[in-house]
Amino acid sequence: MALEKLTSARQLTLPVLEEIFHVAEQMRQVCQKHGRITLLSDKMIGLVFLEPSSRTLLSFQSAAQRLGAGIVFIQGVGSTSFEKGESLSDAIRVFSGYCDLIVARLPKSGDAQIAADASDVPFINAGDGGNEHPTQSLVDTFTIREELGTLSHLNYAFGFDPLQSRSIHSLCMVLSQFEDLGFEFVSPPELRAPKSLIQQCQERGVRVRESDRIADLHSPDVIYLNRLQEERFPDRALFEKYRYEYRLTPEQIPTSARLILDPLPRVDEIALEVDALPIAGYFRQARNGVYIRMALLSMLLGRSL
Amino acid sequence: MALEKLTSARQLTLPVLEEIFHVAEQMRQVCQKHGRITLLSDKMIGLVFLEPSSRTLLSFQSAAQRLGAGIVFIQGVGSTSFEKGESLSDAIRVFSGYCDLIVARLPKSGDAQIAADASDVPFINAGDGGNEHPTQSLVDTFTIREELGTLSHLNYAFGFDPLQSRSIHSLCMVLSQFEDLGFEFVSPPELRAPKSLIQQCQERGVRVRESDRIADLHSPDVIYLNRLQEERFPDRALFEKYRYEYRLTPEQIPTSARLILDPLPRVDEIALEVDALPIAGYFRQARNGVYIRMALLSMLLGRSL
Amino acid sequence: MALEKLTSARQLTLPVLEEIFHVAEQMRQVCQKHGRITLLSDKMIGLVFLEPSSRTLLSFQSAAQRLGAGIVFIQGVGSTSFEKGESLSDAIRVFSGYCDLIVARLPKSGDAQIAADASDVPFINAGDGGNEHPTQSLVDTFTIREELGTLSHLNYAFGFDPLQSRSIHSLCMVLSQFEDLGFEFVSPPELRAPKSLIQQCQERGVRVRESDRIADLHSPDVIYLNRLQEERFPDRALFEKYRYEYRLTPEQIPTSARLILDPLPRVDEIALEVDALPIAGYFRQARNGVYIRMALLSMLLGRSL
Repeated sequence: MALEKLTSARQLTLPVLEEIFHVAEQMRQVCQKHGRITLLSDKMIGLVFLEPSSRTLLSFQSAAQRLGAGIVFIQGVGSTSFEKGESLSDAIRVFSGYCDLIVARLPKSGDAQIAADASDVPFINAGDGGNEHPTQSLVDTFTIREELGTLSHLNYAFGFDPLQSRSIHSLCMVLSQFEDLGFEFVSPPELRAPKSLIQQCQERGVRVRESDRIADLHSPDVIYLNRLQEERFPDRALFEKYRYEYRLTPEQIPTSARLILDPLPRVDEIALEVDALPIAGYFRQARNGVYIRMALLSMLLGRSL
Repeated sequence: MALEKLTSARQLTLPVLEEIFHVAEQMRQVCQKHGRITLLSDKMIGLVFLEPSSRTLLSFQSAAQRLGAGIVFIQGVGSTSFEKGESLSDAIRVFSGYCDLIVARLPKSGDAQIAADASDVPFINAGDGGNEHPTQSLVDTFTIREELGTLSHLNYAFGFDPLQSRSIHSLCMVLSQFEDLGFEFVSPPELRAPKSLIQQCQERGVRVRESDRIADLHSPDVIYLNRLQEERFPDRALFEKYRYEYRLTPEQIPTSARLILDPLPRVDEIALEVDALPIAGYFRQARNGVYIRMALLSMLLGRSL
Repeated sequence: MALEKLTSARQLTLPVLEEIFHVAEQMRQVCQKHGRITLLSDKMIGLVFLEPSSRTLLSFQSAAQRLGAGIVFIQGVGSTSFEKGESLSDAIRVFSGYCDLIVARLPKSGDAQIAADASDVPFINAGDGGNEHPTQSLVDTFTIREELGTLSHLNYAFGFDPLQSRSIHSLCMVLSQFEDLGFEFVSPPELRAPKSLIQQCQERGVRVRESDRIADLHSPDVIYLNRLQEERFPDRALFEKYRYEYRLTPEQIPTSARLILDPLPRVDEIALEVDALPIAGYFRQARNGVYIRMALLSMLLGRSL
């Protein structure tokens, strides 16, 4: 794979996806058998997390060390030299002298490309503002394929904030490469999916529907939900109105549904009673984050099992 | 040992204590000889520290790595997804997918049980609010047994805040299982030990005394002190009044005393001149924290030397 | 080498420098060949960073793990027990029970000596307030010797805040041990080098000049620049006046210059266009930080390749 710097879900073409899925599946098996291996025991991974994160951070920490790599790590704007007025480019260029690969979560849209350009070593975007989070899309698609055997010939429902969810946007773009898909966006009227997103999906042959109510869902195979992000509602009353209205309970799940995913954290979008259902896949999805990130670290460093 | 999730000092029964002490003593020897070993080199330990800590955090970091384990680590509420409204249960369930054992320090009383229930892997409570801190009691009792050869047939003095000290409460409950003990609580009148604690100790056959002054101490073998916690005094003037009045100096130490302990940090409760005395055991006590935590990590993961 | 606790650049005598440079050069070669080695695989390094840092912290993390050592780590006043009123001496004494060597960045001038005295294990000062930062001077001198083959018989220019720059002060003192040197301080009139520094350099035989303008620089071989530290200007208008006036552009570089260094972070003191010049050595300088710190960790722990 020619991939050396992963900044955008747009780089996740079908052959790239296939290779990553294949390696991630190998990583799962090797982890279950050996716990940790020495594939990257001569390497140092740099984790630069300048925005809050827990799942992404912990799964990269876990992935690096399950591969035997060492970690250099800085977290939070307050504890770095950025506050002294240093540019992102300078900082990343210096950091890339301390490690063999950089994983960065950065606060502003577009930061990932700036950082990737400045890095002397392979680079992975672990989220840059509201822009991209390509490793999340990999975790999502890998989980669907593991659980349902395919990504094609499926109906997907996405809720409840298709307007603003970075995870939904990226996932739709990656998925839309597959054949014979239906996408259904379910959301309050104020949070409908962007017209441009719908148009791009349709141009790629996806059947698209929109609805305001969970009850209107039309035979989805996969239901992909994401919390309403309180911080993005200009009007708090609106958030309070919708937070419990858009909440999946066991009774509301269409009989067609075979898998429920959520990039987490979960707030109110899925009732706790759903957790006990076999089709509730979000905790397995989180766990897959480790295997996907092990695959990426190995591949970008040119190593294979 | 059946112990898989350690949340409370109540789980530290006599046979459990014996086994932990035995393994901790082995760990001390192996550390002094080899520095680090590979007993857990296939394991990942998750450290979730959502409240300030230094000693407990560092000693778990040291213990895990002296056993060859990798570490995944999050610290501080501000840097996690908890602020987005995620429940503790969800977070711990996800974290337990990234590692083989979770160690958690959590801000609220009762959090440890919630977290232990949510975890898919073994769990250690490293302190939950004002509630429990069972690994501290292990360090305390291990140190006494190492230094004096026994935990029975001893007189213990506890000061200077038996009302509020989590360390004193837990230690009293663990100790009270041993034979022929005297407990003496020394404190300002406002900070007397809770009646319920005294009653439980007496029911288990412990002789209990209370006094207001260090000078009244009645032939203690072990003196266990803990700082007055300024933040818990509603009246600051009261704190200022007592902070230097309750302060152990070399002159005040009864001749019967054979060991002085303090879970640290020390503020004013022990004068610096005490440090030079051979019976000042608090820095050795801190060091024992590593061996106790190595023992716990190994045992909860089912490994032995 | 007798060095066991490195607190001050004054300990960096000529034989000490020679030995460190020699080992650092070995470390560079071994890193380029093997990535990571096991020289310290039985050791734990304690990193205590109570002040913001990125370069120094990351290069020590990298150095320790490239040598195979484990790391125990605390960062930031807010997450430690220091806020509970514990003394620095107590904290360091306890920490030294958890590891085999302590590296500390501390907020106040003089803290490093207090910490070194309290530590039961070898100690490295990674910066204490405005006082000392001896490992930076090592990185600086190592880089000059690597790039120019010698530290003697050279003219050095230092700017643009010789009054307050800890890096410039320490570097001048270390360099002044070498033969046949010229130092030229270039700064706004308000930021001239301290008289005492100039006097000490002259007493050691260094030729000293001062100038207000970059254009007046007198055939320097090495140009060593450091940002104007906004936070140290009582008068913000003054900072704004000088920040772009004292800024090295390619046109301003004297033809005599063979190497440009900067301890970084860079703010405005060097124009981005300078980066492309072969004599721009500051990113190579940052990278050398890993090799120097690998050398120090090994030597203070009595290990050699």
